[in-house]
Amino acid sequence: MNYSNTFIPTLREVPADAVIASHRLMFRSGMIRKLANGLFAYLPLGLRSFRKVERIIREEMDAIGALELKPTVVLPGEIWKESGRWDAMGEGMLRAKNRLDNDFVVSPTAEEAFTAIVRDELSSYRQLPLALYQINTKFRDEIRPRYGVMRGREFVMKDAYSWHCNDESLDETYQAMGRAYRRIFKRCGLSVIPVKADSGAMGGSGSEEFMVESEIGDNTLILCKNCDYAANVEKAGCAPDYDTAQAAASVPPVEKIDTPNVKTIDELCAFLKTKPQAFIKTLIYRAINVELDISAAPGCKNLERKKGDLVVWPEAFFAAAIRGDLDVNETKLVALLKASEVSLAADSDVTRLTNAPVGFAGPVGLNALPVIVDHSVTAMNDAVTGALEKDLHYQHAAYGRDFTGWMTGDIRTVKAGDRCPLCGGELYEKKGNELGHIFKLGFKYTCSMNVNYLDENGKSQIPTMGCYGIGLDRALASVIEEHHDEAGIVWPASVAPYHVIIIPIKYDGAVKAACDRLAADLEKAGIEVLLDDRDERPGVKFNDADLTGIPWRVVVGDKGLSQPSPQVEIKRRGEKEARVAELDKAARELELKVQEALAELNG
Amino acid sequence: MNYSNTFIPTLREVPADAVIASHRLMFRSGMIRKLANGLFAYLPLGLRSFRKVERIIREEMDAIGALELKPTVVLPGEIWKESGRWDAMGEGMLRAKNRLDNDFVVSPTAEEAFTAIVRDELSSYRQLPLALYQINTKFRDEIRPRYGVMRGREFVMKDAYSWHCNDESLDETYQAMGRAYRRIFKRCGLSVIPVKADSGAMGGSGSEEFMVESEIGDNTLILCKNCDYAANVEKAGCAPDYDTAQAAASVPPVEKIDTPNVKTIDELCAFLKTKPQAFIKTLIYRAINVELDISAAPGCKNLERKKGDLVVWPEAFFAAAIRGDLDVNETKLVALLKASEVSLAADSDVTRLTNAPVGFAGPVGLNALPVIVDHSVTAMNDAVTGALEKDLHYQHAAYGRDFTGWMTGDIRTVKAGDRCPLCGGELYEKKGNELGHIFKLGFKYTCSMNVNYLDENGKSQIPTMGCYGIGLDRALASVIEEHHDEAGIVWPASVAPYHVIIIPIKYDGAVKAACDRLAADLEKAGIEVLLDDRDERPGVKFNDADLTGIPWRVVVGDKGLSQPSPQVEIKRRGEKEARVAELDKAARELELKVQEALAELNG
Repeated sequence: MNYSNTFIPTLREVPADAVIASHRLMFRSGMIRKLANGLFAYLPLGLRSFRKVERIIREEMDAIGALELKPTVVLPGEIWKESGRWDAMGEGMLRAKNRLDNDFVVSPTAEEAFTAIVRDELSSYRQLPLALYQINTKFRDEIRPRYGVMRGREFVMKDAYSWHCNDESLDETYQAMGRAYRRIFKRCGLSVIPVKADSGAMGGSGSEEFMVESEIGDNTLILCKNCDYAANVEKAGCAPDYDTAQAAASVPPVEKIDTPNVKTIDELCAFLKTKPQAFIKTLIYRAINVELDISAAPGCKNLERKKGDLVVWPEAFFAAAIRGDLDVNETKLVALLKASEVSLAADSDVTRLTNAPVGFAGPVGLNALPVIVDHSVTAMNDAVTGALEKDLHYQHAAYGRDFTGWMTGDIRTVKAGDRCPLCGGELYEKKGNELGHIFKLGFKYTCSMNVNYLDENGKSQIPTMGCYGIGLDRALASVIEEHHDEAGIVWPASVAPYHVIIIPIKYDGAVKAACDRLAADLEKAGIEVLLDDRDERPGVKFNDADLTGIPWRVVVGDKGLSQPSPQVEIKRRGEKEARVAELDKAARELELKVQEALAELNG
Repeated sequence: MNYSNTFIPTLREVPADAVIASHRLMFRSGMIRKLANGLFAYLPLGLRSFRKVERIIREEMDAIGALELKPTVVLPGEIWKESGRWDAMGEGMLRAKNRLDNDFVVSPTAEEAFTAIVRDELSSYRQLPLALYQINTKFRDEIRPRYGVMRGREFVMKDAYSWHCNDESLDETYQAMGRAYRRIFKRCGLSVIPVKADSGAMGGSGSEEFMVESEIGDNTLILCKNCDYAANVEKAGCAPDYDTAQAAASVPPVEKIDTPNVKTIDELCAFLKTKPQAFIKTLIYRAINVELDISAAPGCKNLERKKGDLVVWPEAFFAAAIRGDLDVNETKLVALLKASEVSLAADSDVTRLTNAPVGFAGPVGLNALPVIVDHSVTAMNDAVTGALEKDLHYQHAAYGRDFTGWMTGDIRTVKAGDRCPLCGGELYEKKGNELGHIFKLGFKYTCSMNVNYLDENGKSQIPTMGCYGIGLDRALASVIEEHHDEAGIVWPASVAPYHVIIIPIKYDGAVKAACDRLAADLEKAGIEVLLDDRDERPGVKFNDADLTGIPWRVVVGDKGLSQPSPQVEIKRRGEKEARVAELDKAARELELKVQEALAELNG
């Protein structure tokens, strides 16, 4: 392809809102343009790389036997109402009504659409397992779309869904997907960190997120310096950092002390001349749609509601007791309570339930609601904590002796410096962006949408389900984040828009003839070539070649061609020095280099 | 691909709402499933054929130098407001508001998006001509979606747009597109009728529609039995069917006659014992946004409005005089008046403007509004027509002597039996569906959206624009409409989901081995094979092979394999008889046949 026949509007300026490298470089290299906030058009150069990512994903999905479908992008609202997500998805989902007042959704994900298709066709266990996918447009109304296609409103996602007779079959497909994802990212030249993740609003358990490190990442990752433990902070655990062997017997009895006008932990530390580690912090939470059986917990019996076969507590209050220097991880608390949401209770609820002003809650004698005791507290035998009365605290409080709580669990936010739950090594934090996510959904959709099949014995059964996504735009932008330098993009060969750029010093006469022949020879060998035939100064062409990041650059000039055996210069993008090569051997040499680079990524 | 590893849910029943062959067969062969009214999911078999149509279109677009982009499917409402189509597109366009109250449109077409992109990048005439395209999801809220993907709400369209310095350049691209379209349809095995079309709401002039004949077509085509004249009835012309040589001198003077209680043309015919051909029918129309200069026409001066540089008549009334046996073609009238819309005037307006009750309008003495005289009337020299008074008509009215009107033009609806404007042959009608449409848009979008470039002299100019669409879903369905029989689809090789289906009588032992080897040999040669490994009766497999329409069927059984030189049966879909072939030569023979069929379509 000759440069003048394509449409690559490169720019020297950086758009003001482009704060990360991929956004800046995709814009400057003419890969994308902005249509509106969070909406980007891929121009020819960008689309070439985008299609390569798409092809890699399709090949790997096909290789594990997943079958491609194409549902619509605009989905009927009814199926979202069936699954219950019409309400649950909130404002992030773009909804529209047509002239007949029918509800539509611009697909943010497609569990419902695929499940509806499978529901109508599934009859026998012989049809299972079944894995289906699409690579199609999605829309999520990001509150603050930014960072270019890294967090756009419209994007393309590969979303796959699978249905199974049993957990073993689901796990087999889940593992195959995990391996396919690792191959996909490797082939794209991406270093990913697979982490255990909370599966959030998607429901179900058993999930893995594929993260790339990113300063502007949405996720905080907890990693171990010593082993390969990696977890989203929302789910990360840690080794105990306390001595569980300490005996409670030697501690004086619990007693009330006056703490006038002392409200915060800092004030309490100053007042008692001790450290936050010596306190038990007690927070009152309001939880929504609790599915954990709390019928026997204090104050909960009268709150339960039947919801089909399930007993649900639409609203319930809990106290969370945790060591004073630690924070409660609300995502872990949600998971523990099997709730849809938790939030700090209103002051009026705190006062009502603790029978004291805000700031004096504590687990000792707290009977109006269930107390969830973090593991950190179970090791405390001489603690200070609120006494459920204004200006009073307890000291010498000991777990097991003075209080136990309704249940114990791990509800602590793990942070850098904590110890690895696997090896005890030091944990550290990284920001990460999620590129892919695989998870075991279980029966969430098959149950609510009435999917059935007949098993070997002719008995009706509900299949279990898995769900597997990759964002294409974000993957492409992440390649650039990982592979760029000051001058521009440094594409891995597998997703480069072209493999080779040929730059004539002046596209004329013998130079033109040599360039045309070299381009033709390379294209015949399946190598993708951009020939910069523009009437621009060599410096402009070199800059654009660096900016667009094409892996091999060949410079052809009169000087080289006039040597006894005509020469060109070949330079690998990202390397400093160009090498001289014989013109006649250049095509074959480049062909081998491209194939070698592709084989290394694909291998 | 083994049948049991894919997902092809064939059906014996026909869905109740499937009234046309393609809808019935796409559903029965497991190509598509319905998600909601007008929304269809392509299943793996359907998607394979769909992607082949897509690839053919992409190759032909790339071959003429058009460059592929990928704008978003969800477009910002602002650019539609800029172009003025936010209001003009009406309820067919699906709109949505996000959480920030921003307006969005699910793209029904993309003139605005492409023009917005080009506007920002275009600076010099050197960048022109430029042709860009996308193959992407579109949504139009059909009032009555039906006929499966033939008239769905969501569909995929290839839409291309081009920008030019002048009409010659536009015409060059327009012609190249026309040739590419002919190649695309030929390669898909589609017989299209290229017709001159009214370009309708898209604006501009110079356009060609590519139609396929269809009983359930939206369009009426006028075709000549003698030559290749073809036109949409909305624009069709015809040869005069009257003698223009007749002299007016021999006709008695015009005179009023009493026609008591006579209101319709039929009553008038009975009363005067003559035929509708002897009457001049005069209809009063209300026209909206007239751009034809009517400042000198009766009653129009005071209605004009300035709209930028343009003088526009937001509302104006016209009389249309036409021979009594003919109908006014409102689309042709709209084009003649350069109006956005015409409709019959309200009775009160008719009475006010003709100074008579409804039913007595006529061109003689009609001075309150411009009279548009159809060519058929200019040949009438002894006509009956309304006398602008209750219960009175004129007879012996002659064009040129007794009236002339404000302008003459061709506003007649052509119908079967009329004569061809090119050769005089007999015209006939067909119903047709539009598969593609190419047209010269002119300055409609570049003007309203302020697109400029500097010409050779450094002067700012507005580019002219062309626009070229093909509906992929409809093209695919039309292939099936044209290529099917009682038993199912009869795919052309180019868009068949697989080239060859191998049917083992029983997939076991030597038969299994032979089938597996044959499939492997064919796949190595690039032939796409479906191997029906299901444990079904041969009759079921034969029926499904016919239904899914795969071009070559190979039957492998013990009987054939046990011959001295092992044999299989090869049958071309659509042919009656199978042929016996040697197993060892079958792969090579099929390879040649497939290549030959593909070459014929692509050639």
